[in-house]
Amino acid sequence: MIYLTRRERFSAAHRLHQPGLSDEENIDLYGPCANPNWHGHNYELWVTIKGQVDKQSGYVADLKDISNIIREKVIDKVDHRNLNMEVDFMEGIIASTENLAVGIWDQIEPEIRKLGVELHCVKLRETENNDVEYYGEKD
Amino acid sequence: MIYLTRRERFSAAHRLHQPGLSDEENIDLYGPCANPNWHGHNYELWVTIKGQVDKQSGYVADLKDISNIIREKVIDKVDHRNLNMEVDFMEGIIASTENLAVGIWDQIEPEIRKLGVELHCVKLRETENNDVEYYGEKD
Amino acid sequence: MIYLTRRERFSAAHRLHQPGLSDEENIDLYGPCANPNWHGHNYELWVTIKGQVDKQSGYVADLKDISNIIREKVIDKVDHRNLNMEVDFMEGIIASTENLAVGIWDQIEPEIRKLGVELHCVKLRETENNDVEYYGEKD
Amino acid sequence: MIYLTRRERFSAAHRLHQPGLSDEENIDLYGPCANPNWHGHNYELWVTIKGQVDKQSGYVADLKDISNIIREKVIDKVDHRNLNMEVDFMEGIIASTENLAVGIWDQIEPEIRKLGVELHCVKLRETENNDVEYYGEKD
Amino acid sequence: MIYLTRRERFSAAHRLHQPGLSDEENIDLYGPCANPNWHGHNYELWVTIKGQVDKQSGYVADLKDISNIIREKVIDKVDHRNLNMEVDFMEGIIASTENLAVGIWDQIEPEIRKLGVELHCVKLRETENNDVEYYGEKD
Amino acid sequence: MIYLTRRERFSAAHRLHQPGLSDEENIDLYGPCANPNWHGHNYELWVTIKGQVDKQSGYVADLKDISNIIREKVIDKVDHRNLNMEVDFMEGIIASTENLAVGIWDQIEPEIRKLGVELHCVKLRETENNDVEYYGEKD
Repeated sequence: MIYLTRRERFSAAHRLHQPGLSDEENIDLYGPCANPNWHGHNYELWVTIKGQVDKQSGYVADLKDISNIIREKVIDKVDHRNLNMEVDFMEGIIASTENLAVGIWDQIEPEIRKLGVELHCVKLRETENNDVEYYGEKD
Repeated sequence: MIYLTRRERFSAAHRLHQPGLSDEENIDLYGPCANPNWHGHNYELWVTIKGQVDKQSGYVADLKDISNIIREKVIDKVDHRNLNMEVDFMEGIIASTENLAVGIWDQIEPEIRKLGVELHCVKLRETENNDVEYYGEKD
Repeated sequence: MIYLTRRERFSAAHRLHQPGLSDEENIDLYGPCANPNWHGHNYELWVTIKGQVDKQSGYVADLKDISNIIREKVIDKVDHRNLNMEVDFMEGIIASTENLAVGIWDQIEPEIRKLGVELHCVKLRETENNDVEYYGEKD
Repeated sequence: MIYLTRRERFSAAHRLHQPGLSDEENIDLYGPCANPNWHGHNYELWVTIKGQVDKQSGYVADLKDISNIIREKVIDKVDHRNLNMEVDFMEGIIASTENLAVGIWDQIEPEIRKLGVELHCVKLRETENNDVEYYGEKD
Repeated sequence: MIYLTRRERFSAAHRLHQPGLSDEENIDLYGPCANPNWHGHNYELWVTIKGQVDKQSGYVADLKDISNIIREKVIDKVDHRNLNMEVDFMEGIIASTENLAVGIWDQIEPEIRKLGVELHCVKLRETENNDVEYYGEKD
Repeated sequence: MIYLTRRERFSAAHRLHQPGLSDEENIDLYGPCANPNWHGHNYELWVTIKGQVDKQSGYVADLKDISNIIREKVIDKVDHRNLNMEVDFMEGIIASTENLAVGIWDQIEPEIRKLGVELHCVKLRETENNDVEYYGEKD
């Protein structure tokens, strides 16, 4: 059993905002992350899959396939985008790193499974000091 | 003569946009960087000053003073902000990394000079692949 | 279930030293790490907590709260300090990275628990080549 | 229970190549990684061991011992070498990162065990975007 | 005057080898870098250009153009290649980092100049401990 | 003309302290860096030399020679040491990063010159946010 990780990157704008609250209340709650004029980040994304090494190819999976899934299902939708306004899988969801990691898992998990391997972890870094990891545990 | 460098960081939203052009024309010119809904980055900023080592203190300058200048004149104005809409020293200027580096230089240079040392370089990293350096050369 | 990680940093002096042994015996055992005149490191600390995403806030926990706990209970006590002489939670304990990680866990775990989340991992990097991780397993 | 990680590095040439296939078929399968004239990488290797902290020494294990095992059993065999032609423990095995991680595990596990601790993980980074982790799970 | 830097990466095999010397003499001279069976590296390349900021675009140059030149003239020729056997601009030249940096300069300088900016520096990192910089100074 | 850089690392204890001042006065001046019980850092050191590429060897200089000079003249004297108490070339000098960089320059410059190349720059990083560069300019 081998764990294989692919890193990808994207740059996006977002804000933390509860629609039921005013801008002032959101700023009380989230601080500068609630700025109504947006801010943004360079996100780093690590996707880890898990599987057995194929004896013939020496691969768990072809990293090009993993990378293509991440690009098509995630990067093309979020890179140089506004996470609150333009990303289908984040509609109606607060654009926190936690929710974004779960959203990315849900986007790529069915495609990863089709490759015959298991999605193990989605790790998302918002800044050099803040990371989130999600292992698909639905509580 | 010693060169002393302080790193600071900020996260901001921006877009590349010429006001005389339509959104379509801006996208033709700047690609996804012109997205009208914004995107954003974690910027890394290195400020290098230049001076002689003070024999008594062993310092060129107190890094706390350098850091305070950068925070007051730059970080407090750009961190968790929209570079196109909210930053006084970028008003009417295209929010490119080049222009942002020059703007930061102009913000901090008079304050650095008051410390009795010379501002040598402003280096700004937009992504892990893209850097800009400005040494105050007005052509 | 989401894992959320906050990085903090501190710089400290220490030595590896068993009080029952002479300086020579300590140097035989620990090599240059036993230098009686001390040496030091820039430590990097990653604290990982674990919990469910709050539907309303989009947060597992507010990173400012996590950061405040780490600063108050750890960074303020160890940063620019001598780990052998000045740190209450390391008194009478050999200042190895292993013991320091366990000490940090014991410092912050009760405070993290008060936030309604679980402390998952304390990771401590002494140099770019040496890391320790502790998950609270008391053997 | 503490997890202790040591990083080491090596630079090597390799290619991905199934001996039963022609060069063209290998390139169809592996892309440029199958180049018959070789290519190469700076590999980063993290070895994690697991054990209890010795009360007297404050150590799980002496990192010098861990480092010596990795150097003797791995680095001396692979650094500045051709992974396909010159490495005894990779003979007859496709030189993929997956297989290399398993091979390294098998090289060092018996020696690590002699130290009275358990080998927990071999992590191998081929490029800044591609990692493999192996925990000794034989399926 | 602004300096703009683009980072690109490639992975290649090479050896250090003087054709007039035997394998033994080359190993005496270059150590393990002369291994006749090759070794390899992940090279990091930073290309810095220099120019004035265009008032209208806010750019010194379009980074996509810089990146395209580097890819076409360098990366496509060296990535997943053998620097001694397969790279036209290194034919008959010892594959040292120094010579490779000069070769890359000569490849891209005429194309960079066509963009109306000046090539300032080619920086090449062979390992995390070894860098070379070339500023086009022909002695 | 090529610039060749070698990175080395060391871990040391120090404090900032003017012998003519009391501990309290030193703390007023230097803050926590004046802690009489010491603190410490992982220092990163980049030594850049400058010279012409030797046509026959493809080298500006053999990096092993550069590395040996740095180890013998610097690393062996400062690594796992107290910069204030144990380093001959820092005796009577405030242990600031600035003074340490100048001290390192003076240690290695005569030896680098014997290799037939010129010492260009000593760069010293105290923390990930603070660097000093010295180019041998005696004002």
